[in-house]
Amino acid sequence: MIPEHVKNELKHIVGEEYVALSPSEMKEFSSDGTKLEFLPDAVVFPEDAMQVSKLLELANKEKIPVIPRGAGTGMSGGALPVRGGIIMGMDRMNRIIYLDRDNMISKVEPGVITEELQKEAKKIGLFYPPYPASANISTIGGNVAECAGGLRALKYGVTRDYVLGLKIVLPTGEILETGTKTVKGVVGYDLTRLIIGSEGTLAVITEVLLRLVPAPEYKKSMAIFFKEIETSIKGVIKILQFRIIPSILEFLDDICLDCIKEDLYIPASANSMLMIELDGPRSLVMEEAKKVKKICQSNGAIYIDIIENEQEEKKLWETRNQLSHYMYKLRPHKISEDIVVPRNNIPKMVSYIKSLSKEYGMPIPVFGHAGDGNLHVNIMLNKDNNIELIRAKELIPKLFKKVIELHGTISGEHGIGITKAPYMGMEVPRTGIELMRRIKKAFDPNDILNPGKIFWEGGSSW
Amino acid sequence: MIPEHVKNELKHIVGEEYVALSPSEMKEFSSDGTKLEFLPDAVVFPEDAMQVSKLLELANKEKIPVIPRGAGTGMSGGALPVRGGIIMGMDRMNRIIYLDRDNMISKVEPGVITEELQKEAKKIGLFYPPYPASANISTIGGNVAECAGGLRALKYGVTRDYVLGLKIVLPTGEILETGTKTVKGVVGYDLTRLIIGSEGTLAVITEVLLRLVPAPEYKKSMAIFFKEIETSIKGVIKILQFRIIPSILEFLDDICLDCIKEDLYIPASANSMLMIELDGPRSLVMEEAKKVKKICQSNGAIYIDIIENEQEEKKLWETRNQLSHYMYKLRPHKISEDIVVPRNNIPKMVSYIKSLSKEYGMPIPVFGHAGDGNLHVNIMLNKDNNIELIRAKELIPKLFKKVIELHGTISGEHGIGITKAPYMGMEVPRTGIELMRRIKKAFDPNDILNPGKIFWEGGSSW
Repeated sequence: MIPEHVKNELKHIVGEEYVALSPSEMKEFSSDGTKLEFLPDAVVFPEDAMQVSKLLELANKEKIPVIPRGAGTGMSGGALPVRGGIIMGMDRMNRIIYLDRDNMISKVEPGVITEELQKEAKKIGLFYPPYPASANISTIGGNVAECAGGLRALKYGVTRDYVLGLKIVLPTGEILETGTKTVKGVVGYDLTRLIIGSEGTLAVITEVLLRLVPAPEYKKSMAIFFKEIETSIKGVIKILQFRIIPSILEFLDDICLDCIKEDLYIPASANSMLMIELDGPRSLVMEEAKKVKKICQSNGAIYIDIIENEQEEKKLWETRNQLSHYMYKLRPHKISEDIVVPRNNIPKMVSYIKSLSKEYGMPIPVFGHAGDGNLHVNIMLNKDNNIELIRAKELIPKLFKKVIELHGTISGEHGIGITKAPYMGMEVPRTGIELMRRIKKAFDPNDILNPGKIFWEGGSSW
Repeated sequence: MIPEHVKNELKHIVGEEYVALSPSEMKEFSSDGTKLEFLPDAVVFPEDAMQVSKLLELANKEKIPVIPRGAGTGMSGGALPVRGGIIMGMDRMNRIIYLDRDNMISKVEPGVITEELQKEAKKIGLFYPPYPASANISTIGGNVAECAGGLRALKYGVTRDYVLGLKIVLPTGEILETGTKTVKGVVGYDLTRLIIGSEGTLAVITEVLLRLVPAPEYKKSMAIFFKEIETSIKGVIKILQFRIIPSILEFLDDICLDCIKEDLYIPASANSMLMIELDGPRSLVMEEAKKVKKICQSNGAIYIDIIENEQEEKKLWETRNQLSHYMYKLRPHKISEDIVVPRNNIPKMVSYIKSLSKEYGMPIPVFGHAGDGNLHVNIMLNKDNNIELIRAKELIPKLFKKVIELHGTISGEHGIGITKAPYMGMEVPRTGIELMRRIKKAFDPNDILNPGKIFWEGGSSW
């Protein structure tokens, strides 16, 4: 609980109308994409770095946890107040400060919605490529905090590759600018990239300086169907070997196809699908689309659709972005993992998942970003059925063990947060975790900023 | 000085033949690209991570500085033993451990020469894009330690963008693997990118896991001449606005042109030149070359050469890579700065440099990577002429002040080392430097790894 004088100070710093203290007001901010719930002690909405600084100074003095929060779409519980404390909502800090066409950069506040920036950039011929499936609601600040990946990582990289600099506030209240306005910059340690993906545990982001690229002239989408996962992934590897890097290269397994077949045409014998987007100069894209068709034809594709009309194209990508929701046809609840393996190990990984699904008697649809090996593994269950819950908890470490065996990583884009904290030690050795703890301490001596995240402390109740 | 028992232990760890202790043997390792000289107390050549670990454990116990060293091409003194101690030469650790075509990755030891990796990758249709002008002698380990940039940064990014993971040895001797084999990976803090560009002060790199891309099908080089810097940079911005991102986009000022005119055709009225390389699918490159020609013609170019023969092309890029050496026609010594400004501020920056040159009476040729705003500023002087030396020392902080004013950075790719350490405070506020010091402490409690670098301590003698 927060003492009364602190509540008054919160109101004094941001203004009474920007502080929520009653459980009914705060409920909205007690959950995120994980559907887990933790009620905070206060929710505040600062309007600028100065207010963030004052809030952190106060919290640091009083040793009260502060949890920065974007749109709350996180999939690992990074924005949940597991120890109570103050949720710092970045909603009001949502200005695009500038878009600079000559230098192809943009400075934004953290609360800007990713798709909003993409729309504004497009107006002047520029392109912000990172594309998490939640782009229409998630924020740039949240994307930076988690190092969001999404659908375009193979060709364009992830959030990390577009952040040139940050304005941050340290847990002790100091305001600091990091990075440069340019692609190059090697002055001192790379604080910018250290903050990216640190899940709000090292500093609060108050401005983000982004690199943009020229908007591609043309795009073309394709839907390609295979009898087996193996051949579809071989197709992916062949496409890349022909020097074609699609801007999007998604794959879906048989259970996913079953879930969407009412809304999208799926050939009866198909057990795997690639959804492809090519982008670039028009003539090149047309040429590449033909090549992709040829490559897939001679590598076992059973049906290939080069999509010609805009409506069909929109339908394809909407279906992809809604894939997560289609799964609820199978069971009322879902545990989503976002493992990654080197792309030539995808078939092995998927067939192991199929064997787990059989062994534990739960459907586990898999889809993901085939180009970069990032698989979304959806363990479907009924959480009210205690046996299924126990089985899921048994299954997850087995899944991660296989990921490590296949030279992969247990989180490609969701982060560690609380849901993966118990398993981080499977991937990162004790030495690494100790080093990370010392870095955390160097930033946050009193452990007030998003405490209980990343580092596993045992005994929690989710 | 190192005590006798430590010398014996060094020999015991790496073998007698891999320890140099006499001044004559050690002289070769006492200098780098800066031409400054500091004699170490010992030079050792470990053969694997285990030996590196034992050496660091010993040095940490005895509190002796250890300075990791690649090819010694560094331009900021990062590999100089300013406090004496042990130079750790990575020469023997020069294996390409594997090249994996399906996953487009490679694992190498730090002593691999950058160009060697490029050649081997090309054999299987892959491409490692980072291209410092020293690529034929500098090593991957050194490139990672400094976050080398070079000629291809605008289109392809810098070293940081290709390093997926590292094997490192901490100053306290622990061996640690960081990162992932995949583009995506967000497990804990980004230790990989924290090490990149940390100039050998946080850990010794013993393996580097690199991302590769498909080798471009075709390349085309162009030489384009302008009457003024302003129009050449306007040309650059126009090219980008037409969605053309050259793989190389270099610019040279009038003094540079004067230095190379005996070896390369330079039109008499030219005062600025662009050297361009386009890469990609053949048909696209041909189309883009024509477009670039048209854009530059209608933006004031006085002569455009689309290079048609291989020999001419080789000559062009050799001249570019040797540019630094051509400068010695002007004066016997050179101080090289590698400032960066947002690209639309290049003309302002260059004209300020011209005014400094006039004011101080020293020639200052400027060339650089126009696309990413990275300028190589070459202060030409005779160091035996004390007045010129004093003038150069006066001029440098003025140069950096202007860089900061124009929203730039004082080092794009050379690093801070010792030569820029006195000026880092002009760009990074005290809060940032303090934070970096705490991070250094988290890695290296006894300050044994490359001490005296990055952080300015005053009173040095170079």
